[in-house]
Parts: sequence; C-alpha cells; structure tokens
Amino acid sequence: MKKAINRPEDVVVEALRGMEAAHPDRLRVSYEPKFITRADAPVRGKVALVSGGGSGHEPLHGGFVGPGMLDAACPGEVFTSPTPDQVEAATRAVDGGQGALHIIKNYTGDVLNFETAADLCRAEGLEVEAVLVNDDVAVEDSLFTAGRRGVGTTVLLEKIAGAAAERGQDLATVASLARRVNEEGRSFGMAFTSCTVPSAGKPTFDLGPDEIELGIGIHGEPGRERTTNRPARELVEQMAETVLGDLPFAKGDRVIAMLNGMGGTPLLELYLLYGEFARLAADRGLLVERNLVGDYITSLEMQGFSLTLLRVDDAMVELWDDPVLTPGLRWGG
Amino acid sequence: MKKAINRPEDVVVEALRGMEAAHPDRLRVSYEPKFITRADAPVRGKVALVSGGGSGHEPLHGGFVGPGMLDAACPGEVFTSPTPDQVEAATRAVDGGQGALHIIKNYTGDVLNFETAADLCRAEGLEVEAVLVNDDVAVEDSLFTAGRRGVGTTVLLEKIAGAAAERGQDLATVASLARRVNEEGRSFGMAFTSCTVPSAGKPTFDLGPDEIELGIGIHGEPGRERTTNRPARELVEQMAETVLGDLPFAKGDRVIAMLNGMGGTPLLELYLLYGEFARLAADRGLLVERNLVGDYITSLEMQGFSLTLLRVDDAMVELWDDPVLTPGLRWGG
Repeated sequence: MKKAINRPEDVVVEALRGMEAAHPDRLRVSYEPKFITRADAPVRGKVALVSGGGSGHEPLHGGFVGPGMLDAACPGEVFTSPTPDQVEAATRAVDGGQGALHIIKNYTGDVLNFETAADLCRAEGLEVEAVLVNDDVAVEDSLFTAGRRGVGTTVLLEKIAGAAAERGQDLATVASLARRVNEEGRSFGMAFTSCTVPSAGKPTFDLGPDEIELGIGIHGEPGRERTTNRPARELVEQMAETVLGDLPFAKGDRVIAMLNGMGGTPLLELYLLYGEFARLAADRGLLVERNLVGDYITSLEMQGFSLTLLRVDDAMVELWDDPVLTPGLRWGG
Repeated sequence: MKKAINRPEDVVVEALRGMEAAHPDRLRVSYEPKFITRADAPVRGKVALVSGGGSGHEPLHGGFVGPGMLDAACPGEVFTSPTPDQVEAATRAVDGGQGALHIIKNYTGDVLNFETAADLCRAEGLEVEAVLVNDDVAVEDSLFTAGRRGVGTTVLLEKIAGAAAERGQDLATVASLARRVNEEGRSFGMAFTSCTVPSAGKPTFDLGPDEIELGIGIHGEPGRERTTNRPARELVEQMAETVLGDLPFAKGDRVIAMLNGMGGTPLLELYLLYGEFARLAADRGLLVERNLVGDYITSLEMQGFSLTLLRVDDAMVELWDDPVLTPGLRWGG
C-alpha cells in the first residue's frame, strides 16, 4: 500500500487538521467528537442541515459544509459510519432554533447511528427530521445496505435543500423538498480499479487487467456485473440507459446531471464521458439544465465514475443556482 | 490499459466536446485548430492571456479559461506541445486590441512552438509578450527541458496575471507582474505510481510496491531520487525543505501555498498532507496568506502530489482575491 499518510489509524483526524488549516475562515473542526461546522454556526432562525458518513468520499461531506449547503458534517473512520455521539453533538452545535434535517445515505450503520442520534437530540428538545438517500439503481440490498444504496444524489440534495434552508424555509418544507430530490434522483457507478482502505492495507477487491465492475458501490461493494472493458461511448450508453429506465425519465424531462469521478480518474476522461452523455441526452430529448463534472463523491483512489440524474422543476433549478460557498462547491459568492 | 476513452487518437477532441457541453455559457471551443476561449472573448480593451500545453494536466489549462484568468487555452495531444497554428489562431481570436501575454511552461517543444506563434502574431501586427514558467526545483534540465521545468506556479501565475489583465492593466505591466510571479514561485513533486498515456497504452515508468519517485515531472519524467515510501510527515518535510531552501524563503515571508494532487490521489490524503505542511510552515515562521488544496495541475491518473510556494506581497494577494469564474477555479462571482 502506497499512500500519503502517517499511521492508518490517524488518517481521519490528520485530514481534519488539514481541512481546518486550509479553510480557517470557513470551517470549524471539533475533534472530540469529530465534526465540521460552518464558521458562522449556529445560524439563528435557520433550519440546520447535518450529514455525515464514512470518510474516504471527499469532498462529500465535509467539503460541502458552508453557506448554502451543510451546517455540519460528521466524518466516520474510512468507510465506517459516524457514531451517534458525533451526530448528536454536531446537531446541537449548529442548532439555530428551527430544528435540524439529517441527511443520511442508505447504509445500515449510518441509518442506525443517525436514528439513535436523532432520538438523543429529541430527548434534549431539538426537532429533527431525517431524509434517507437511496438512489443507486445498480442493486437492491447490498453488502452494507437493506434496499438501495445512497450515492450521488446526496450531493445534489445537499445543495438544493441547503439553498432552501438558507432562504429561511421551515423544517417541514426543507425535509419535504429533500425527500422529493431523493425520489427524483438516480445513479449508477462503475470501477476500473479497486480502492485500498488504509487500515486494511490491500485492495478491497481485485479486477483483471481488462476487467471492470458495473454497478460498483462507493465502498467497493459488488455491483451488478463484472465484465470486460469497453469504449467510453458504450459504457456511458449502458449506464445511462439503466439510470433513465429506472425512474423512468422521459423525453422532455429537465435534469441536473452529475458525471462524477471516483477519485482516481483523470478529469480529461470525465469530460470525455460527459461529452458522450450530453450527446445521448440530446438524442433522448432530455433537457440538461445544469451539470457537474468532477470528483464529488469518491471512493479513495478508485478509478471509475458514476452518473447521477436528477429530474428537476423550476423551483429546484432556482435553488440550485442560489449562492453556495463551500470548499467543494462554490458559486455566486 | 483501462481508461474511460474511445480511440486513443480521439481523446483530446472528445474531451473538448465534453468541456463545451458542460460549460456552454462560459466557454467556446474551436476544433480546427483546437483551442478554448472564454465565451465573451474578445474582451475589448483588455490584455489577452493565452496559455496551452500538452493535454493530460487538467484542469490546467482549459479549466482556467474565464473571467479573471485566461482568455484562451491551446490543448496539445496528451503530453504533447500545441502547434504554432493553434496558438496563433487562439491569440487572434481573443485579441482585444491591447496585445497578448503568452504563458509558457518551460518544455522545449512548448517554448519553440509558442515562439513561432508569437512571430506569426507579430507579423500580423499583434503585440505579444511571453512569460516562461520554470519553477520546478527538482532538476536542472530534464527529458523535455533545458533548465527547470514549469509546473505548479503556472496555476498561481494564471490567476494573478489574469486578475491584473481583468483590471485593465497594460501589457508591459501584466507581463512584468507575471515574470515576478514566476521568480517568486517554487515547486517540487513526487509520485507513488506512474501515469499511462492513452496512445502508449502502458505505464510511462515502473515503480516497485514500496517505491516512490521524488522530484517527478508532470509527464512522468525522472526526478531526483527513487526511494522507498515514508510517512507523509517525512515526505512533506523533505519536499518543503527543498522548496524553502531554493528561493530561499525566510521566516516572516508571506506565501500562497498549493498542495496539488497529481490526479489519482484522494482528497483525504491531500488534506492530510496540507495539514503537515501547515504545521511545518508555522514552525518555520512562514505566513500562509492563501492556499489551494486539490487537483490543479495533474498527470493523468498518476498518484502523487506537489507542493508549490509563491512568495507574495500585498498587491499579489489583492489580485489573488479578485473574482475568478472558470471551471477549475471560481470565487467572488
């Protein structure tokens, strides 16, 4: 294992020190328990958005903390759920008196620990709603999941719900919007190579020199099919058709599209893939209103990519365009 | 070779199609010859900034085209200099009547082709100045270079000179500032793994399971030393000391620091590395005024990172903070 780390057990806390040093004007970091908040938290009169999950998916979630997106993020160890005490402490730290929305990717550990945290918060008199993201069309149930896994739609949901909260919308409205974003979002990922969890010290799985895994999970969980590599055009077609057929998306639908890198794929290739998707979208009569191309929800150094499509209406596009000021996503400010 | 591409010979043009599709409001793409311009080019009364180089280093340079940074970028084939006709056509396309500054990384092919392009432009009556970036302290001369290679300082230079041009400063002033940025910038890079050029189909070099290359070039050119991997803290110390000793930087110096990923290194590790650098900088009495952590000048899927330090004064920091609106760097707008 060749990684830019010191001791595997210190990776998360040392990365947090780097985030704190890199963004002193934007972020505050708590180390015991571990969570990141926007520097101006708590924002009085605003619904607080709190997310979290295993580390190793950066910029998700810590990189999306800031005005217009998350109030707090709770990083677990690499690919490991954050604990209830992290989530509870983070929620208390950013509570602005209007309640909190927990944004949870659908993995069993995350769901249980966020539920326990919400119970603790409610026992202290905090109002907490939760939204579960389960947008991965690749597999039903999985290594760490009952039902579908939560992946790329999380990024889009954190942006759109974050904008609604920043506008001063109340908890019920923000939670309802967030659930609608999840319902309208679908994703599918693939891998050329495995990732290596620092504490494991060896690749999570093995792929032959011409093998790829379609439907890969963001922790390297098995997907739908292990097959041979193919031209980018065919890869995108196969993945996009799977995503489009699932909602299903229809001609004339307006979408936000994310062509996401898994961490080890060059931006040159991500743009090439987006070009293939854009052509297919035009052929199918989809209206791509906005897009993201880059690394937004990653799996350490995994080579691969995922496609996320979110069906949107005017209101969602307007919220998308609202200012956002985070390390990982920034515009309008 | 497992890459998300179609035919190796189509990678660059297909990636350009994706860039055009992803940023229709921001960028314009010419395909014959190949160059990218900001959508509002030419900007009348503004000095035009034109850069370019081999593809495979994205977001450099195409991702830095936009208000506050470059007017045009000329992508060569992967790791191959752009041709004089690309640079000449791009310069003409963005000429706003105040002359153009060519920003050239110091590689022999780039230098020759930009010189030829400048001659062609001048023959047409365009005023052209050039700045050469040669900030890599790792080696004197190299596989593709006489003198030092041009690497990370290019990113900082394009931002700072771009701001000066956007403010309406004249060609001589912008060129002089750009040269000063190059003089004040130093970089050093390392690799854990090789990259693979699509047309070559195999890794550019081989490293053993515990081997690293210190002083690596952005095309995989040999560095100073092939050695065994070590803890991140020691890596950063060794690389930072080399950079600091070269200018040399002194206690009390104000710097902009860039901790840059080579393309395949997880953001989690880049933040960890930046944390190590920030501690060292504090120990040495350096004042880190601003920083960038992420993938800004890459080598395809290479795992590794580089450190760039730029000694700055008030004027440079102010220009750094000016708005910039490009796919790869964006704030204040």
